[in-house]
Amino acid sequence: MIGLSSYAGVMESPMNSAQEQQPFSPLTNSWSTQQESNENQKPTSVGGFVLVHAGAGYHSESKAKEYKHVCKRACQRAVDRLKAGALAVEAVAAALIELEDSPFTNAGMGSNLNLSGEIECDASIMDGKSLHYGAVGSISGIKNPVVVANRLLSEAQKGKLSAGRIPPCFLVGRGAHDWAVSQGIPPCPSEKMATKFSLSAYKRNKRKMELAEKIDTGHKQTKKRRQSSENENGSGCLDTVGAVVVDLEGNVAAAVSSGGLAMKHPGRVGQAAHYGCGCWAENACNMNPYSTAVSTSGCGEHLIRTMLARECSAAMQSEDAHQALLEAMQNKFISSPFLASEDRVLGGVIVLRCCRCVEAQPSQNIQGILVEFLWSHTTESMCVGYMSAQDSKAKTHISRLPPGTIPGQSLAIEGGVCRLMSVVESTEKSQSHPC
Amino acid sequence: MIGLSSYAGVMESPMNSAQEQQPFSPLTNSWSTQQESNENQKPTSVGGFVLVHAGAGYHSESKAKEYKHVCKRACQRAVDRLKAGALAVEAVAAALIELEDSPFTNAGMGSNLNLSGEIECDASIMDGKSLHYGAVGSISGIKNPVVVANRLLSEAQKGKLSAGRIPPCFLVGRGAHDWAVSQGIPPCPSEKMATKFSLSAYKRNKRKMELAEKIDTGHKQTKKRRQSSENENGSGCLDTVGAVVVDLEGNVAAAVSSGGLAMKHPGRVGQAAHYGCGCWAENACNMNPYSTAVSTSGCGEHLIRTMLARECSAAMQSEDAHQALLEAMQNKFISSPFLASEDRVLGGVIVLRCCRCVEAQPSQNIQGILVEFLWSHTTESMCVGYMSAQDSKAKTHISRLPPGTIPGQSLAIEGGVCRLMSVVESTEKSQSHPC
Repeated sequence: MIGLSSYAGVMESPMNSAQEQQPFSPLTNSWSTQQESNENQKPTSVGGFVLVHAGAGYHSESKAKEYKHVCKRACQRAVDRLKAGALAVEAVAAALIELEDSPFTNAGMGSNLNLSGEIECDASIMDGKSLHYGAVGSISGIKNPVVVANRLLSEAQKGKLSAGRIPPCFLVGRGAHDWAVSQGIPPCPSEKMATKFSLSAYKRNKRKMELAEKIDTGHKQTKKRRQSSENENGSGCLDTVGAVVVDLEGNVAAAVSSGGLAMKHPGRVGQAAHYGCGCWAENACNMNPYSTAVSTSGCGEHLIRTMLARECSAAMQSEDAHQALLEAMQNKFISSPFLASEDRVLGGVIVLRCCRCVEAQPSQNIQGILVEFLWSHTTESMCVGYMSAQDSKAKTHISRLPPGTIPGQSLAIEGGVCRLMSVVESTEKSQSHPC
Repeated sequence: MIGLSSYAGVMESPMNSAQEQQPFSPLTNSWSTQQESNENQKPTSVGGFVLVHAGAGYHSESKAKEYKHVCKRACQRAVDRLKAGALAVEAVAAALIELEDSPFTNAGMGSNLNLSGEIECDASIMDGKSLHYGAVGSISGIKNPVVVANRLLSEAQKGKLSAGRIPPCFLVGRGAHDWAVSQGIPPCPSEKMATKFSLSAYKRNKRKMELAEKIDTGHKQTKKRRQSSENENGSGCLDTVGAVVVDLEGNVAAAVSSGGLAMKHPGRVGQAAHYGCGCWAENACNMNPYSTAVSTSGCGEHLIRTMLARECSAAMQSEDAHQALLEAMQNKFISSPFLASEDRVLGGVIVLRCCRCVEAQPSQNIQGILVEFLWSHTTESMCVGYMSAQDSKAKTHISRLPPGTIPGQSLAIEGGVCRLMSVVESTEKSQSHPC
């Protein structure tokens, strides 16, 4: 039943090969000589690389420009932070704020409305250096949920609270909102977070639901009701956002933010707040040669039950990044025994993996980081953007499943390779967490 | 810094070797001949085995009797359901209800109060057969949070909702409460869930906090405040409850429920609601020879960041169950790179692993299931109970770290082995999920 879409067909690179980033080749998995002579690449001690997504779902041609535009801005925000010397975790949060602020994405401003017509958001962030993690679930009245998740992460890093209490890494609902406000994060009236688009989508969805339930009641097919209209929600409402970043110290970070499924039950928490499911970041260590960062998008319940972010991260320790991601998406997602009862498995991931590269080092005090960046999705489309600190602007792309393939049963996979170079200071900066 | 407690010393079996369950031997990993001749073991087609815990933390001698008593009752509840032909998932829920209803445990009735003096509970349940999962986080005003988690699990198994909406597997806060009530689960006034004990503990903790903060302010050591009193919360308030069950079809299930850390921030969600962290259950399949079920207890943040339930489950596919759990607790918990900054790593697990046993089969239509059951903890103590459907009553035990070892840096590990026998029907019942 489940078919893998033509691999070669999907692999056509979205990138201009004369640009800095090179199309990823599953055969050679290496740099072309063009890269070596690229004059844009000036060794620097600050910088890094960012890859963002504006969701795996369906991105209509009419809105493609908007989605690309927000991805571009998000990349720029992260790169600005990297250039200012920020670590990966700060840069990834900056990218997420831009993605959340767009009224076109299903995160922060313009999030999907739930069954009661309210906005409840999930977000999480993970720092590959400290391996700390912060998350908020079902939070209302906060413009940038990722800021609260990031604050939880940084507060947890400070150690215990008074009387030996352990700081929380995950807050939900009213408690999360109140904690955010107590931390000086300003509340935002919920009505300001809804957009003309999200309100009209809510009305449309509500009519659809009422109609579906009417038909079901009319046909007295209450038992069959649940299977009757499985396509009506489509995959257009899955446009969660996320980002993965590596800085020039080689630290990785990942984040994700979502308004959740349209017409979800109030209090429902999706993968964006779930540890190991929405995002994952792990610096290289003794056991793992590669630093990896992953951010997911799609149907939250599918991504939770398969723990897709962590599975993809673990898979990326194999030699061939492209093959590893392909197999993870196929075996741990589409064909996962955890989703055996699902006819369509909807999701997408963006992935970074990095390692120090020793070959073709221009001089001893110049250190290179090889960055492989990939995305893969089973949804009709996925919008991504990427940029290194040496680029003048971000590149964006809407990846689509090849014609004739079935969303939820096939996948697309694409990516590229980029090398970052930094001047090595007198003491080498650490890339590893203490394992 | 981290020392492993004397292994041999801790391995002394809590069980009477003349009883049905045999002390687990890491050397032979097999049944003693006593078991074969046990006349209490009558082949039957309904039955199974249950292992419960009333928390990893500190169980005072004065309250030991109460903790043991509730474990005994919980085992009996599960066995009653198994004898009535219930599957593992129903039996595990029944055990949890009993554990939640006890005013002595930190779950349901008698849960720890949060910073605002309110009760907010977490619970989750996983069915190893369908691999479905249900969880509630930070839920108030519901006597048995596990019932809501179980309802989410069973509703998700029915497939999609109207208009193709995907049913939630995780609900939190007010939304979780309202969904429960809409499903016919009666609300329970919060004041009825607090006990004399939980209220006095709240007052004591509040005083302790105020005092700690006063001292910190007085000393103007605001930066050091966080390290100053790390022992004051102790591990006395970590007594989350949980259970793991195998039925005679070989299906496993696991569940966990918690009132969370005392004086937690409102909205804080701990491991008990976190997929892969609070409980895990996976029937055997092509790739995994053993069915495994795990339930955890302890410091939620430590258990979340190490995903301890899933890690222990995965480890149990190794040949030697005892050694595998020992290594998992040592390498994936106490020495986990995810908790490198923690000086004390507090938690405990109960584990079941089962496989069909072919040796010493009395006849062709009698099928045996070999059940290995273990518990391990880094906290001062852990209270467990266990019972097979052939037993007249449950056995209970309070496992303690050996004298002189340091909680959070050492571990205790114990366990036993039991064989279940069932009459095989004309068509063999399935033990595997479709992988």
